Amino acid sequence: MKRNDTIVAVATPQGVGGIAVVRLSGPDALAMATSHLNLRPPTSDLRPRQAVYCRFDDLDDGIAVYYPQGYTGEPTVEFSCHGSLYVQQALLQTLVDDGARLAEAGEFTRRAFLNGRLDLSQAEAVADLIDAVTPTQHQLAVSQLRGGYADELKALRQQLLDLTSLLELELDFSQEDVEFADRSQLIHLVGSLSLRINSLRNSFRLGNALKRGIPTAIIGRPNAGKSSLLNALLADDRAIVSPIAGTTRDTVEETFSIDGFTFRLIDTAGLHPTDDPLENLGIKRSIAAAVQADIILYVHDATRSFADALADMQSLQDAGVSLEGKHLWIVNNKMDLPDAVNPTPGVGIAVSSTQGTGLDNLRQVMVDAVRRDKAASSDILLTNARHYDALGRADAALRQVADALTQGVPADLVAVDLRDALYHLGTITGDVANDEILSNIFSRFCIGK
Amino acid sequence: MKRNDTIVAVATPQGVGGIAVVRLSGPDALAMATSHLNLRPPTSDLRPRQAVYCRFDDLDDGIAVYYPQGYTGEPTVEFSCHGSLYVQQALLQTLVDDGARLAEAGEFTRRAFLNGRLDLSQAEAVADLIDAVTPTQHQLAVSQLRGGYADELKALRQQLLDLTSLLELELDFSQEDVEFADRSQLIHLVGSLSLRINSLRNSFRLGNALKRGIPTAIIGRPNAGKSSLLNALLADDRAIVSPIAGTTRDTVEETFSIDGFTFRLIDTAGLHPTDDPLENLGIKRSIAAAVQADIILYVHDATRSFADALADMQSLQDAGVSLEGKHLWIVNNKMDLPDAVNPTPGVGIAVSSTQGTGLDNLRQVMVDAVRRDKAASSDILLTNARHYDALGRADAALRQVADALTQGVPADLVAVDLRDALYHLGTITGDVANDEILSNIFSRFCIGK
Repeated sequence: MKRNDTIVAVATPQGVGGIAVVRLSGPDALAMATSHLNLRPPTSDLRPRQAVYCRFDDLDDGIAVYYPQGYTGEPTVEFSCHGSLYVQQALLQTLVDDGARLAEAGEFTRRAFLNGRLDLSQAEAVADLIDAVTPTQHQLAVSQLRGGYADELKALRQQLLDLTSLLELELDFSQEDVEFADRSQLIHLVGSLSLRINSLRNSFRLGNALKRGIPTAIIGRPNAGKSSLLNALLADDRAIVSPIAGTTRDTVEETFSIDGFTFRLIDTAGLHPTDDPLENLGIKRSIAAAVQADIILYVHDATRSFADALADMQSLQDAGVSLEGKHLWIVNNKMDLPDAVNPTPGVGIAVSSTQGTGLDNLRQVMVDAVRRDKAASSDILLTNARHYDALGRADAALRQVADALTQGVPADLVAVDLRDALYHLGTITGDVANDEILSNIFSRFCIGK
Repeated sequence: MKRNDTIVAVATPQGVGGIAVVRLSGPDALAMATSHLNLRPPTSDLRPRQAVYCRFDDLDDGIAVYYPQGYTGEPTVEFSCHGSLYVQQALLQTLVDDGARLAEAGEFTRRAFLNGRLDLSQAEAVADLIDAVTPTQHQLAVSQLRGGYADELKALRQQLLDLTSLLELELDFSQEDVEFADRSQLIHLVGSLSLRINSLRNSFRLGNALKRGIPTAIIGRPNAGKSSLLNALLADDRAIVSPIAGTTRDTVEETFSIDGFTFRLIDTAGLHPTDDPLENLGIKRSIAAAVQADIILYVHDATRSFADALADMQSLQDAGVSLEGKHLWIVNNKMDLPDAVNPTPGVGIAVSSTQGTGLDNLRQVMVDAVRRDKAASSDILLTNARHYDALGRADAALRQVADALTQGVPADLVAVDLRDALYHLGTITGDVANDEILSNIFSRFCIGK
């Protein structure tokens, strides 16, 4: 699995620029580079971490830096060349002709992981960091890259591993009825691990929302002004607007970012009592969006009766939309019209999408709520769906362990569940890693990282 | 003109990648960088040309290198960070908040020129190098970057300058009828300079063709198979095909590259005798394309009478298409058809665009011809239109000088023309430079170079 050849790739973004950086990593990196480098002055040497001006064959002039242990943990030479397509291509070609292999996506980081420079959750954080566009995404990735919960999980897993080893030792002496593993200590450890796992898993909803954008459903009666509200929210100068292709709905959702938080706005079909099966299908989707959302903006046409809104609230709850853990605001729209009435003063948010009034207030309310959620949550938020899944599996196994221990189940059966929990915990940090896990993770990366 | 503030830009291509390089140059570069850099280990120091691992505020970890005299000739710090859009943007923002200015296009290279690190023709070569896609474009740019004709022109200009100064000294003693400047030496120098200028200017046609693609007109009768030949030439696997928007014809020309040479294929309207004014307009354009071309591929339908082809050759020449310095090949097309006859065996090139036969031969003939032209030309080819123009103006002034000297015109009049020649020669290397010249040149550059 740990391949030991020398790999090469352009590490900088694809395209033409002032300079590009070609990274060469592996046992032959120094030899390969120096056989092509003409150092200036010619008496110089590629000394560790020294930036040296050089000529690369007849191809280009640039700067070479040699790292005995680079990003990958291997001997690495980084060459800054002119950022033309031809130079980048020709440099790669020369080194490949010389025996280097073009690196696969994420292969430098994969080697960094295999050489113990990063654990797996940090390697994943590198990909998140590179993909980050908003400050919040960036902050989440940096927090994970700089340790996050991985160190804590590693320590807890190590304790569990020690106790499991003792338990398994008992099996070798099964005829003699000894207990090396302290059962009460084990129960206590399993309990505190479960607690930590569940607190992390609970942070995933917020963590994931902060990373991918907070799902915000805009619902209401037909013609209440849902789409106008969406457009008005997006039209703000300060907002970064971008379309994201919806994954489950085959529709386009719009996102906007404000104060570093990204909201994923989902426009829905108008709710109203109808026997039309097609319309009811649309309404079902609206309800599904409300279920998925962290924020529901219920848009009410302030020139109409508020009874409709109250009926909708009821039917949402009848349809199984739990409001627990969600924010729901009533947005009283069309306040610019002469016969508009704010039916929920002090509670609802009065806006006029067409006039643009009240929108700043609405945005502020949304941001404040998310900021409060974030402050109330643990410092460390789970943002990685793979980790969420692995923690769930580990937790299920730990529950089995806890049940077994209280029921006095034999040690060999308990050990099987413990190993299961250890396995799933290990996949997060990479204490357990196989090619399938690694390939899944590193295929997300760009070439050259 | 020589601004002395500290500038910053991303030097690597725009976009997301493994790493990006932010370049900070100017008197405050070191102070600005270190006020944000947390070096690891904290006892380290930013020593010249030493790659140091560091943390940049809370934003990112990366490598910083300090050059007391970087690319620009000024103190420079280059920071390799993670290549996310957020990190790149935030790093720039931090440094701008700290007083740095976002660099304009080409401003780093402009400073390198102003600080005497490059002459102007080398600075222009940097832009050509970055734009290079084919080996030939690359080679032309590298040759210019590594000196080219600039050093030679500089030396000749210096001699001319010395003689001009002597001549001008005479003016201070105009009452005394002295001659400090040796007239025969001056005539000799002007003559050899003219000779060199004209040899350089003559190389421009080939140099420019090699750089931009060799203009290749495909002409012939309607239905001779001109477009099929174009498509067949483009369809080759080894060829890089790309559309280039024609500048004068509002049409799309196709280019293909083979063995490092790029050909710019221009398909034309079919030639035939007609009274239709619209068709005659098309034919006029075909003839114009033939005039512009370095290579003419005359496509003949091998199932038809060769008399048509002979008539076309005649009418091309009647229309003023000089074949001097051009390659013209008769391509006998449709050789796959049963009644096809090769009317020019041993001379014409027999092909079948539909069957793909003979195309390799045709391509080889084209490449060989260009390679021969290149070998026959001077080592150094002029590729820069600005230099071509400046050399033309210098030459015109030198002709005036030569005439004046032979006719015994007074020194003060000769000096005016000499100064004119010196000026135009100086604009090539940058011995003469003004903001207009510099802005024209550096606006071509990308940001960050």
